[in-house]
Amino acid sequence: MTGQLDLGHLTIHRETATPLATQVYEAIERRIAGGSIPQNARLPTTRELAAALGVNRGTVQAAYRRLAQEGLVEGRVGSGTVVVGAATEEPFRIEELVSRKAAGVPEEEPIALTPPLVADFSRLAPDERFFPLEEFTRTVSYAWSRRRDLWQYAPPLGLPELRVEIAGRLTESGIERSPDEILVVSGAQQGLDLLFRTFTDPGDTVAVESPTYSGALALARLAAVSVLPLPMSTLGADPGPLLGRRVKLVYLMPERQNPTGLTTCDSRRRELLEAALASGALIVEDGFEEPESGISTLAARRKDRVVWLGTLSKDLVPGIRIGWIAAERPIIERLARVKRAADFQTPVPLQAAVAAFLRAGSDRRARRGRSEEVALRVSCAAQALAEHLPRVSWWGGDGANPLFWLHLPEGVSGRRVAEAAAGRGVGVSPGQDFDPRGEDRPNVRLSVSRVERRDVEKGIRLLGEAVVEIESRSRAVFSAPVV
Amino acid sequence: MTGQLDLGHLTIHRETATPLATQVYEAIERRIAGGSIPQNARLPTTRELAAALGVNRGTVQAAYRRLAQEGLVEGRVGSGTVVVGAATEEPFRIEELVSRKAAGVPEEEPIALTPPLVADFSRLAPDERFFPLEEFTRTVSYAWSRRRDLWQYAPPLGLPELRVEIAGRLTESGIERSPDEILVVSGAQQGLDLLFRTFTDPGDTVAVESPTYSGALALARLAAVSVLPLPMSTLGADPGPLLGRRVKLVYLMPERQNPTGLTTCDSRRRELLEAALASGALIVEDGFEEPESGISTLAARRKDRVVWLGTLSKDLVPGIRIGWIAAERPIIERLARVKRAADFQTPVPLQAAVAAFLRAGSDRRARRGRSEEVALRVSCAAQALAEHLPRVSWWGGDGANPLFWLHLPEGVSGRRVAEAAAGRGVGVSPGQDFDPRGEDRPNVRLSVSRVERRDVEKGIRLLGEAVVEIESRSRAVFSAPVV
Repeated sequence: MTGQLDLGHLTIHRETATPLATQVYEAIERRIAGGSIPQNARLPTTRELAAALGVNRGTVQAAYRRLAQEGLVEGRVGSGTVVVGAATEEPFRIEELVSRKAAGVPEEEPIALTPPLVADFSRLAPDERFFPLEEFTRTVSYAWSRRRDLWQYAPPLGLPELRVEIAGRLTESGIERSPDEILVVSGAQQGLDLLFRTFTDPGDTVAVESPTYSGALALARLAAVSVLPLPMSTLGADPGPLLGRRVKLVYLMPERQNPTGLTTCDSRRRELLEAALASGALIVEDGFEEPESGISTLAARRKDRVVWLGTLSKDLVPGIRIGWIAAERPIIERLARVKRAADFQTPVPLQAAVAAFLRAGSDRRARRGRSEEVALRVSCAAQALAEHLPRVSWWGGDGANPLFWLHLPEGVSGRRVAEAAAGRGVGVSPGQDFDPRGEDRPNVRLSVSRVERRDVEKGIRLLGEAVVEIESRSRAVFSAPVV
Repeated sequence: MTGQLDLGHLTIHRETATPLATQVYEAIERRIAGGSIPQNARLPTTRELAAALGVNRGTVQAAYRRLAQEGLVEGRVGSGTVVVGAATEEPFRIEELVSRKAAGVPEEEPIALTPPLVADFSRLAPDERFFPLEEFTRTVSYAWSRRRDLWQYAPPLGLPELRVEIAGRLTESGIERSPDEILVVSGAQQGLDLLFRTFTDPGDTVAVESPTYSGALALARLAAVSVLPLPMSTLGADPGPLLGRRVKLVYLMPERQNPTGLTTCDSRRRELLEAALASGALIVEDGFEEPESGISTLAARRKDRVVWLGTLSKDLVPGIRIGWIAAERPIIERLARVKRAADFQTPVPLQAAVAAFLRAGSDRRARRGRSEEVALRVSCAAQALAEHLPRVSWWGGDGANPLFWLHLPEGVSGRRVAEAAAGRGVGVSPGQDFDPRGEDRPNVRLSVSRVERRDVEKGIRLLGEAVVEIESRSRAVFSAPVV
């Protein structure tokens, strides 16, 4: 038996429409439910509480009656009014609070690799061995030592000196943009998120290549938009599905498309652009690497309607999380407003470091070394694929392009092949991850960007075994005699 | 007169439902509109184009007829079919593409300070003079030199070593959380954005103190939620409006509330917590500074329903953009999924640097030096307010709490006072910025966190002049004789 409770801190709001008795009832009921008034506690007498709260005694009596009716308190001889109810709080389930959009974002279920790890072909990010860490650290120290202005809130467009560097790079690539037409973002993923948030409402249509970058599909689900797939062929995405449609965004990777590794040819780029323009869409061109094919980018063709999305993640390392959006001012201004609400700014000290690093050309030196090595890995992989997966054709995998998109035999599940490979210590990405409808497909993606040459052949040999295993099991199922 | 066009790259999609003639018409129409077929260009003959496309000549004839009907082409003697139409593309206005939510985010219209700048009381971020830049740079070099694992994609929860540091700090503040109950975010602003995105749908109700942090109001507009204001008094926010309501999030700053500088007292915290629990809400407690009052936080009282939002921005510098959310696992997991879709991760190299910096206690040393100086500025400001604004009362401004919330005389516009002060080189924040309904109010917020002691008195004297000017003008308007 605990002593009498002090309910003096219970506040009555005379200005609200809720009757005083209801307020007293609810205040006590919440305290019992929340546990701050424990079981067996004795409430003050109605007279005492009425005096403490400055209300009529009848008000408190009404509140106590209701508490008794609901089984929360009872009168006991010698004890007065005692809390008895195992009054439970409203059940609270966090799942019920989750927004419709957030509910659409799938949990990441990476396929676990069984040790010993042989080769992880599932990572597209560049090998950090080619990241000039010492040079970057020196650049950071130097870039920070001279200034105290990097540590405050700053305009959301980004540090002017970084925007100057980015605009210069773009202009070299044939995409003429001024520094004012650049918005620095925390990686291209944030850039794409800002584009979805700024230019789509739930139910709007967004067209994407099929297959496409899995991160874009996650954002499409978060934005609750309807996805229109444009099937990929070796020429590039098919503009056909755009005809006669009203589309908000068309998201394209004309150069070394992820996951197929394909570069869209010139005439197909023109057709895609025209079909996208006719659909009323803003076109998002994801240039996750500096363009190398020499084919004119969409952004170079139509400045007013194409938004260029750039990043350091694939050319340098992803951990720095610096990307950019290049577009005409009215688009940039709209995006910057949402950026400011979302996170104010991309870390300015990092922007200063990256600006100095780009200005010194350090990223390009790093890239040259890496490209040479990646090209060697690619030709290794091509030979190993011909040897160990002779009946499997593929796209991509040319020059320093580390992506291979494998076409498995009809009916063979890419997901099951990826799982069987993981069981052998080999990581590949199932085609399903890149499918706009999230369906399993007879494809897997291989990237040699982070696999050393000496591991490429063995990894692909084990992948070959995985394909044979899954294929024979599929055949066994399909050709099982009816008994 | 240009030569005949090559339309061979025009692709016909036989698999779509669109009639072939329509496809040919649309393809040519788009090219004319987009400018890739110029004025006066000569189209191929219907026979040539039909052969090139592998369709009936009648199909092409039908397409050409429609082009002629719409005034885009005409037949000319000796030239065949020539483009004449000044065919305009569908007018494209980016404003029409903007999403409903993004349209709700207001443009930032900072009040420009007229030079010479006397004192800028509009900034709450700490003075960067107290940021130990050399020490931070050394820590960064050291934290990076030992590892190559900071530069890749990483799990969205954040670097384990930083989560250990944060969990340790929280536990010292009475908020017992394990490292697995921490999500590292890119500043508390992103943390709040993730909370809105994960737990609110448009039209849901979110309760906030009134006045409240302007960044929360921007996010509420972006999330298209309905805002329920809980009026502030010296005791803290009034829980009354929560009674009987169904609320998704309740956003509170019990300690040194922004903008009022008030610390909510113990009994009011209990009432707010109970009312919020009864409303079904998840409670967001913004601890933008380490709690110092010694009053138990909401997060310490109810672990399952209170989300703690922390940041380095107010204790150190905002430019680093590191914040954290502490909550139970089911909440953290949901938030991490949205975080991953939104930007993968907060820059891992910065996380490593901050972890080392916190481990060394460097932030606390910096904070002590800063607090002493801020306390001196605060007492300076309090004296100057008593001298130059004797009829204006205020909240906040105690100890090292740099915030003053001024109550201007009834009917005096905070916005006009802020503008008049800006004209004198003095920055203050109009109360309107913090009003949940965006209405002008007879308040301004002063912060002395970035104003040197020698400028405080003069700045407040000029602010006093601004108040007198606006007050006399208001009175002139109100008491103007009717003529």
